[in-house]
Order: sequence, then structure tokens, then C-alpha cells
Amino acid sequence: MTEKSYPKGSAFPPLTKGKLRLYSMRFCPFAQRTRLVLAQKRIPHETVNVDLKEKPEWFLERNPLGMVPTLEQDDKVVYESLITCDYLDDVYPQNRLTPADPYRKAQDAMLVDYYGSKCIPNYYKVMRTEGKDEEAKETLTKALQKLDEEVSKRGKFFGGEQVAMIDFMLWPWFERIGLLKSAAPDLLPSATKFPKLFAWTQAMLQEPAVKATLFDLDTHMIFVQSYKDGKPNYDIGLER
Amino acid sequence: MTEKSYPKGSAFPPLTKGKLRLYSMRFCPFAQRTRLVLAQKRIPHETVNVDLKEKPEWFLERNPLGMVPTLEQDDKVVYESLITCDYLDDVYPQNRLTPADPYRKAQDAMLVDYYGSKCIPNYYKVMRTEGKDEEAKETLTKALQKLDEEVSKRGKFFGGEQVAMIDFMLWPWFERIGLLKSAAPDLLPSATKFPKLFAWTQAMLQEPAVKATLFDLDTHMIFVQSYKDGKPNYDIGLER
Repeated sequence: MTEKSYPKGSAFPPLTKGKLRLYSMRFCPFAQRTRLVLAQKRIPHETVNVDLKEKPEWFLERNPLGMVPTLEQDDKVVYESLITCDYLDDVYPQNRLTPADPYRKAQDAMLVDYYGSKCIPNYYKVMRTEGKDEEAKETLTKALQKLDEEVSKRGKFFGGEQVAMIDFMLWPWFERIGLLKSAAPDLLPSATKFPKLFAWTQAMLQEPAVKATLFDLDTHMIFVQSYKDGKPNYDIGLER
Repeated sequence: MTEKSYPKGSAFPPLTKGKLRLYSMRFCPFAQRTRLVLAQKRIPHETVNVDLKEKPEWFLERNPLGMVPTLEQDDKVVYESLITCDYLDDVYPQNRLTPADPYRKAQDAMLVDYYGSKCIPNYYKVMRTEGKDEEAKETLTKALQKLDEEVSKRGKFFGGEQVAMIDFMLWPWFERIGLLKSAAPDLLPSATKFPKLFAWTQAMLQEPAVKATLFDLDTHMIFVQSYKDGKPNYDIGLER
């Protein structure tokens, strides 16, 4: 099966009975959450990358919102990144990633919610405005400060001494945080700035699931530039 | 303990060891989700209503976002309506409200997510613009159509033949949908418009948890008017 993205008008790649399929886009951080969980739990699956600008008709039939990640298996379809990850953790209970303790689970859910409302949108605002949106920079700085404090209370990972669901839910935007280096150099975690958060990023880079789904910064930059130019290159590095 | 709202400057009502407390606002639909779950599961608790315009300092110390619902018990604090409801269902496992089947659970999560992005914001847009925002009305109409189809596939309730978490997560805005009667009369479920959804609202009105947390439309209208006037009356109907 090709890694190249399927565009509008392409033929539907047939499903295999019982086989789990992920609809993804190679550079999508939300889909990476699901890819991290699939890798960490060693869940057998196949991946179909879709062209998010010119979406295949058969993709929109499965998910009318037209978003990745989307999972499909036989007659089941699941989408929304957090929901797909919880679903995989429920269906494949080996190496459980979500805390069993209800309060710890609630704390992680609150942190992911906070991250989704304070970090993710402001990360994109800072990038889009090339650092000129001071309010976005300030909110993002405060949020990173909070994450730095939080991880220092929790351990090596947000999950404690072991990597857990929460770490994978936060990771994709940290893989890409170097994209802000010219727009907002003060926001980049380092040994002196957000040091606990920086140590966490270094620990994450050693995790097999992170290594398995990682693109280097240069590749992310090429993708973002192609996206800004209105011609997103979903197939960077793949054979033509 | 008084039901009256605690404003800024008020003294902190002391906690009792082991006792669960809900910080709420009597007319807040998000807090009502948690109140419905507390009622349905018959969870012993106390309620502290807070003035959301002039928030008590001790409330902001507990939840820096300053939002209801917020739960507190001993050293634990949980907020965000969906997270509080899942937490209660986890900690008090009697009469479990969330489906045990992972796919059904994921389907419910997708529907609540859809509702939160398509129904709730457009409900408020239609109300605020007094029906002049045609796009909001159209999106809301489509979303109600989808809910009508969905419940007809599922049974008497969104949970099937029994009321479940999903029903309580959707309910509060249906209790208030009559507030749109002058702005968008065509949106109101009835025996001829969204009939399955209407039948569901009638079934919900028979549920003890709904009865226990319900305000009638006149009271909701008085609250909304006071809110629009910039002087939200959190204490309607309470003794002065």
C-alpha cells in the first residue's frame, strides 16, 4: 500500500475484513496522536493518507467532517483525535496508556483540555503572524510555564516515570515547536528556558513510538511552506 | 447551606472532610450536566452557587478558569463539564451511565463533540442575533435534523431504551430551546418538526433527574433578560 496521499477522484483502496485502517495525513499533528498510540501499543493496522485539500469522495462518505485522524474497521468508523486514542486504548487493552485512577484520569483530561484551548491555537497564531501577535505569544508563554511546572511535579513524563497517553497527546506540537524559532525564539524550551519541559522533550525523543512517527524540522518546514503557498506537499520524500 | 450565589468578597463556606461539593450557577447549562449526573446517580453532595460576574477570590483559587461546574472533595478539584461527569461516573460506579462497549462509547463521544461544535455555539448565536444570523440558523437546523435521525436509530433515548450519559449531556439546551421561539420558531421540535427529537424531549421530561434540576421557561427567560441587561439575577425565586 502506498504512503502517497489519495486525492479527490482516486479509487477507493479496498478494505480487508477485520483489518484496522487509519486515514491520516503524514504531517498532521492530530493524526500523529493516533499514530503514536498505534505505535506504542503495537496495534496492527494499515494507513491511508488522504489529500486534505482535494479530499476523496469516499473519505467524505466515511467522515463528513473530512478530518484526520479517522479509523475504520469493518462497519465501524471513529474520528476526532482524542476519541480515536481513547477508543484504541479501550479496544486494545495491552499496555494501557490511560490512568486507571479516576482522579488522575480527570487531571490528565483537564490538562489536555487546557493545552487544546491555550497552547494549540496560540501556537498557530504565533506562526501565522510571525510573532507579531503579542497576546498570543504571552498566552503561549504562560501555558508553557504551566506545563513546565506540571511536568516537574509529575516526573520524567507527564504520565509519571512511564510515558502515558497524556504525553502522546501533547507531543506533536513540541516536535514542531522549532518552527517558531524565528517568530518567537524566546518560546523554545531549552536547558535554561522551561528546563523541565525541555528535559521532557529530550526524554520523548528517546521513545520508540516518537522515533517511529517523527519528521525532522527541515521536513516540517518544507511542508509548512508548501501549505502557506497554497500547494500543500503531502508526499515530501516519497518516490514519485 | 444557602442556595444564594456567593459573590466576590464573600467568606469561604468551609468544606466538610470527605464531603463532595459542586460549585454551580443555578441557570448554567454546563453545570446542569453535572447536576443531572449527581441526581441520576443519587450521589450525596452539597452545592455552592457562585456569582459568575463577580467571582469569589476563593473560587478562582480553586479553578483559575473561574468556570462552573467545578467539583471539590478534600484535596481534589475537577472541572470542565464533560470531565466532571466522567469523573463522577468513574468514582461512583453504581448505575453506570457511560457505555461499556468501546465503540458505543466512541460514538457517543463523537456525538457530544458534534453537538458541542454545531449546536451549542449556534444556539447562542441565534439567540444573540434574534434569528438574524441565517448561517447559524441553517447550521442549527441541520444539526437538529441529524439528532432527530440519530435518536430514531437509537431508541427512546440517545442511550437506547434507558437514559444514559449522552442524554444528560445534550439535555440542558433542549430545556432552554423554547427561548428561541420568537427568534427562530421553525427550530422548535414538535410533533411535526423533528418528531423523534420531540418525543425524546417528552421522555426526558419524565425522568426524575431532569425534574430535579429543571427550571421552567419563564424562569429561564427572566434569567436571560437579566443577563442581557448586564445584571444577571442568579437568585431568582430564592428568599431575600
